[in-house]
Amino acid sequence: MDSLPLYRQLAAHYVDAIHTGSLKQGDKLPSLRSLMRLHGISLSTALQLCRTMESDGWVEARDRSGYFVRRPRRLAIAPMEEPPAGVPPDPAQYVGIHAKVSDFVARRRQLPEKLNFSIARGAPELYPAEALRNAMTRMLRQQPDMLTVAAPLKGHRQFREVLAQRSLRVGMAISPEDILVTNGCIEALNLALRAVAQPGDTVAVESPTFYGLLQVLESLGMRALEIPTSPQTGLSIEALELAIRTYDNIKAVVVVPHLQNPLGSVMPDAHKARLAQLCERHGIPLIEDDTYSELVDAPTPPRALKSWDAGGNVIHCASLHKILAPGLRLGWITAGRWHARVEMLKYAQTRNNEGLSQSGAGLFMATGAYDRHLRHLRTCLKTQREQTADAIAGYFPAGTRINLPPGGLQLWVELPERLSSSRVFDAALAERIVVAPGTLFSNSSRFDHYLRINCGWPYGEAVDTGLRRLGQIIETLMNRGAGAAAAPLPVRPASPAAAARPPEARRIQSSSARAA
Amino acid sequence: MDSLPLYRQLAAHYVDAIHTGSLKQGDKLPSLRSLMRLHGISLSTALQLCRTMESDGWVEARDRSGYFVRRPRRLAIAPMEEPPAGVPPDPAQYVGIHAKVSDFVARRRQLPEKLNFSIARGAPELYPAEALRNAMTRMLRQQPDMLTVAAPLKGHRQFREVLAQRSLRVGMAISPEDILVTNGCIEALNLALRAVAQPGDTVAVESPTFYGLLQVLESLGMRALEIPTSPQTGLSIEALELAIRTYDNIKAVVVVPHLQNPLGSVMPDAHKARLAQLCERHGIPLIEDDTYSELVDAPTPPRALKSWDAGGNVIHCASLHKILAPGLRLGWITAGRWHARVEMLKYAQTRNNEGLSQSGAGLFMATGAYDRHLRHLRTCLKTQREQTADAIAGYFPAGTRINLPPGGLQLWVELPERLSSSRVFDAALAERIVVAPGTLFSNSSRFDHYLRINCGWPYGEAVDTGLRRLGQIIETLMNRGAGAAAAPLPVRPASPAAAARPPEARRIQSSSARAA
Repeated sequence: MDSLPLYRQLAAHYVDAIHTGSLKQGDKLPSLRSLMRLHGISLSTALQLCRTMESDGWVEARDRSGYFVRRPRRLAIAPMEEPPAGVPPDPAQYVGIHAKVSDFVARRRQLPEKLNFSIARGAPELYPAEALRNAMTRMLRQQPDMLTVAAPLKGHRQFREVLAQRSLRVGMAISPEDILVTNGCIEALNLALRAVAQPGDTVAVESPTFYGLLQVLESLGMRALEIPTSPQTGLSIEALELAIRTYDNIKAVVVVPHLQNPLGSVMPDAHKARLAQLCERHGIPLIEDDTYSELVDAPTPPRALKSWDAGGNVIHCASLHKILAPGLRLGWITAGRWHARVEMLKYAQTRNNEGLSQSGAGLFMATGAYDRHLRHLRTCLKTQREQTADAIAGYFPAGTRINLPPGGLQLWVELPERLSSSRVFDAALAERIVVAPGTLFSNSSRFDHYLRINCGWPYGEAVDTGLRRLGQIIETLMNRGAGAAAAPLPVRPASPAAAARPPEARRIQSSSARAA
Repeated sequence: MDSLPLYRQLAAHYVDAIHTGSLKQGDKLPSLRSLMRLHGISLSTALQLCRTMESDGWVEARDRSGYFVRRPRRLAIAPMEEPPAGVPPDPAQYVGIHAKVSDFVARRRQLPEKLNFSIARGAPELYPAEALRNAMTRMLRQQPDMLTVAAPLKGHRQFREVLAQRSLRVGMAISPEDILVTNGCIEALNLALRAVAQPGDTVAVESPTFYGLLQVLESLGMRALEIPTSPQTGLSIEALELAIRTYDNIKAVVVVPHLQNPLGSVMPDAHKARLAQLCERHGIPLIEDDTYSELVDAPTPPRALKSWDAGGNVIHCASLHKILAPGLRLGWITAGRWHARVEMLKYAQTRNNEGLSQSGAGLFMATGAYDRHLRHLRTCLKTQREQTADAIAGYFPAGTRINLPPGGLQLWVELPERLSSSRVFDAALAERIVVAPGTLFSNSSRFDHYLRINCGWPYGEAVDTGLRRLGQIIETLMNRGAGAAAAPLPVRPASPAAAARPPEARRIQSSSARAA
């Protein structure tokens, strides 16, 4: 906390006061002059304090009167319930994922999308395009044979050195030789699973989990056993223990300990320690997908699960395309005691990665600009998540639930009255708004009344309008009830008249709708 | 033939005369003046004619006397025998490949290599490094969000357009939508095999074949059924028919129709047509690995096997890193009726490829510079193959056999008296010369007395010395006989005295040794 700037520390102090009730809605924040005197700070720091609280939604400025406390709407929305952990998961609920994903993709492609909330990715402007382009151009100049000599199978040396060095921050003491560069985290997961399990084997995963993992398992002929997972603390260790006792054929466990996709949960350190020990004790390989840890709202990312791994039982996988640049396909794997087998599988699957992007990324990541970028990205995403959550709280019908995760790119939204997300998907798609229905995040039908909403877009009028419209769609569907499932919603094409309205008029309409 | 320059057409005419015996060894070629008058050509064309024949080894210049016919030594070496095609292959000969490859790699890493004949790759200087660097730099400038926006899953549009357009030259009428960009040809082969076969299934392959393919099959839990393959005409269709009749469980056939690795064979068009029909008739998917066709010594590459495919039964795979730049990992797949399944598997395995190298390569390939590069590469490789073959003919003991392939990067060498290539590998490695032993090219032990020799290095003193030393090693091992297998050869470390000799002395010694 001490590494936060002073104005942020003071802002946290006042937010605490709001939480505890010392400052109530409508109360006036101390004036700038009082703040300067009270905390012995400069006018500029006092101003930063107030503006930070304003942009986070905790106070609002009233002309010439000062800043007044408000409660962000997102705080009014109910959190989700914890899943039951005392019942062993039922593999018979398996309905498969490929058909669902194919159907999703095919339907999404029918119309050119206007607004895509279905991905989990930041907008291009959140990433350091220019600095990376310069790094690539520089590497092309410095290493003239970059394109005509094959890069080493393990990966570019300097890139692996940067990765190994940064691993120290999350408690992993590894050397560059322990790391193998892959085509994104998804290839790392493929290799990890192929190294430790065979077709027909059962693999325990979080429930819900991202459909990419379910696809990998299905494409490898492996079966996913879905373990109840808390929106707050991630995989339920009790439920996993029960599953291990109930089924003796679990060949691997895959977890996303930090900012789980789609839940956004972060496992407490004590849970990670227990999980590593549990898997070690039962001889079950533990695969850690650590793609998001740099997006946790904290000056340094949380400790990797692998940092509790003494015997090489944890396979650590991570990647750059969510945190450094979505146009890169750079992942890496630290495979513990399966290193040699993973290296062989990588060679047989895709050989070495290209050298250029590795060396360019490595060059950039070795400078202070990388951490500055990550801080900036976290700040932007935090604002965007909070704005999105506020909009959902304002626009979606009562009974909607969300958990505001401590970082990351998305929100997981529970729809009221178990409304089918497939119906929401269809109706929204007709207006060229794409959402990710909860059906994609499980091989069962347990999450059919959930949506995953991307918060990667800077919050602006288009996003606001889209979320408002989503709220209306959900409300309309609820009013119709389940019986009307087959009837399509009236499609409203973008009205030329509306598009021709001056931006100012649209903004005002948007604001008033929002306040309603 | 008409598209060849005039001097090459005339050179071919005189080479024919040498083959038929009209011109005998020692005969004098017509003088430059006579050539000009005889063919109505300029002095410059006559000179090009003579110099081409000289560099190809067909004539030698004698001071002030003109050019005299010689027979390149490579013509004196015996070709290999055709494999028996009337015996069904025996799957029981399976001994596996991973252990052999791992052992090969581990032993190769023991010493820093001096000269690597074991790869199948051109030297960096044979590829257009500068033009490609410029293309990449230009794409980074033209598309500022290249690194921050994910490329399409299928691949960069312009790159696929260039690939589709060039496919017309080999008889494939496909659209960019039929193509999926992959991480090298090896990923394309993985996807093709995973699309059409399951673990436990049997896949027919050429014998010998490149160990990469055997590794892919073994890593996917599939079984390779090795089909006899001619050093001249490739896969034996008769042997494949017999195998299909004998075993009813063949789920796919994989072939390299052009410049097969390691044989260098090229399938005649009639064979390709029959093979496509045979597989279609039996409902067996046919996977074509077309990595090398641009390296065939001809103005345009041979027709793809896929051009005989009416029903989408042929999956075509190819890549750039042998023909455009070894530092790129760009392959592509045209999967016929398995397109949707391959696209799903690609998504689950590695997602999209990075955009930068695709777009840069596409930019370069859309210009005339690409075909100019390919012509230059083919010319260099032809010279290097012939020089290597001449050296083998001169330096290796009698009984050595080679087939000079009509293009490509390597020679497949049969050792005399069934000498074990593993013993040659060990003895050469002690002198830091690496060769690829024939054991790597089959799951059986049928090719233990073969070596694959890379011709990708421009022929110079180091290569000449290395080949001469290889010949001596082979001779020594033969003289010792099989009984002495375990005894290591005396290792000769590079003598400081020899290294200190002036280059001229070394050149002379090398030449005299070569003439011996």
